Amino acid sequence: MNAAPAAIEEGPLALICGGGSLPLAVADFVGARGRKVMLFPLHGAANPADFERRQCQWLYFGQGGKFARIARGAACRDAVFIGSLVRPAFWQIRPDFKVMMLMPRIAAAFRGGDDHLLSGIARLFEREGFRLLGAHEVAPEILVPSGVLGRVPASEGDRADIALGFDYLRATGGFDVGQAVVVAGKHVLAVEAAEGTDDMLVRVAQMRANGRVRSPAGIGVLVKAPKPGQDRRFDLPSIGPQTIEGAARAKLAGIAVVAGSTIIAKPEQLIAAADHANIFVIGASAETGQ
Amino acid sequence: MNAAPAAIEEGPLALICGGGSLPLAVADFVGARGRKVMLFPLHGAANPADFERRQCQWLYFGQGGKFARIARGAACRDAVFIGSLVRPAFWQIRPDFKVMMLMPRIAAAFRGGDDHLLSGIARLFEREGFRLLGAHEVAPEILVPSGVLGRVPASEGDRADIALGFDYLRATGGFDVGQAVVVAGKHVLAVEAAEGTDDMLVRVAQMRANGRVRSPAGIGVLVKAPKPGQDRRFDLPSIGPQTIEGAARAKLAGIAVVAGSTIIAKPEQLIAAADHANIFVIGASAETGQ
Repeated sequence: MNAAPAAIEEGPLALICGGGSLPLAVADFVGARGRKVMLFPLHGAANPADFERRQCQWLYFGQGGKFARIARGAACRDAVFIGSLVRPAFWQIRPDFKVMMLMPRIAAAFRGGDDHLLSGIARLFEREGFRLLGAHEVAPEILVPSGVLGRVPASEGDRADIALGFDYLRATGGFDVGQAVVVAGKHVLAVEAAEGTDDMLVRVAQMRANGRVRSPAGIGVLVKAPKPGQDRRFDLPSIGPQTIEGAARAKLAGIAVVAGSTIIAKPEQLIAAADHANIFVIGASAETGQ
Repeated sequence: MNAAPAAIEEGPLALICGGGSLPLAVADFVGARGRKVMLFPLHGAANPADFERRQCQWLYFGQGGKFARIARGAACRDAVFIGSLVRPAFWQIRPDFKVMMLMPRIAAAFRGGDDHLLSGIARLFEREGFRLLGAHEVAPEILVPSGVLGRVPASEGDRADIALGFDYLRATGGFDVGQAVVVAGKHVLAVEAAEGTDDMLVRVAQMRANGRVRSPAGIGVLVKAPKPGQDRRFDLPSIGPQTIEGAARAKLAGIAVVAGSTIIAKPEQLIAAADHANIFVIGASAETGQ
């Protein structure tokens, strides 16, 4: 283990924190390697209670100048954005002078899909001399490993649904849409777009309740994959304990994601919840779906 | 016009009626050509009030033997199924002896997606000596014509969204999923699967209301297309006045469907509603999207 000398060369890491539990998990994994972490939680996204006892610098969306000044002053060269983010409402954005100057570029990035927006923001960081990394590059512990997590296995029918789900996601990968589907008995029940995975699972639960979906409880798989060509530095798909809750309410058999390309929040909690709900969780190869 | 002699040769048409206004519209168009129509409304799908003053034979799902006996007795050789249909609950199905014998085939058809189910049912009709036709073959008036219906034109941005929508539907055509999407500003906001078009439009309205979708009101198009290889005899996509209402609530600019391959219910009402809501309706070529 020669993490400490590398960490000194690298300097502290600037961690811009969205919502959820992942930002502090990443901070702790990076800190455990001996690297200093500067926390920049985002107003409207990060939960204030989580940061009460941590040293941090709160930012509003748009405070790129403030971020650059503080991070550069602390000798940070690497920056990571991690955590959930709903597109901010207009009144939540407080562009400082630097960001004001860049507004035409940001607006142009906004007009495209999420991929355009995110890669546009990445370019802005790079213009300021920061290196934008993926959270999984500084904390690989947050990635889903290969194989079955927990104690519940997938049946042969489940494996066929998983393969069909990955096929569908591959076919639509070029369209910059949310990358998750629910497949049951070789039938695509729901496709995620702007609503997000959790809302899609609510929809499947509703369709089960109102009789629109007739496949029996315990049939059906949530399949998630990163988009081909997606900027993996800040836009990997993720699952967490709430994904298990959503899958359980939708009466699914399990969840399949791409091993090494999916972020897992609160892995112990997630696996315990999956075992308790009798739901399988698989880190599959995107190519073979197995 | 030599409709009358042809009609005598063809014999009466057996029209199995699901829900909505289309079945009686088809009956009237066919009747206007001088062909006799026998109405078979389905319990649980067709609205009893609509059939009060018409001669008809009500059927439960599964009463294939009763249908075959009555239709054959009336010298019908051609049958058409038209109207909306939710997959019947188990207790709504009353299979008679003939259908009981065919249950293993029907169950096999049910296990696939909708396409499997429908083409399986078509084969059952054909085994009984009936020719199953599409409603649009006996009443072409129910198809969306080419070009802009109503008074509202599509902008250049709308045309780009329409083209992207048709591209997406082409890419997913092989998957036996519902064939509609909402695209706004070159961004796919929603993809229809088992929930149906109306529910998808409700979702877009909700995402507009909760801020998940930020594209301004009046941007966005509902794009619908038949699946490639879909059995067009009873599974063409359709639009009606309620589609306009849904699109208006979702604050869309308009609706694009494939001319000649989309059924339009209550065309006068639909066009009046579209003009009133300032929503365009286009019958496009599936290839060019224009």
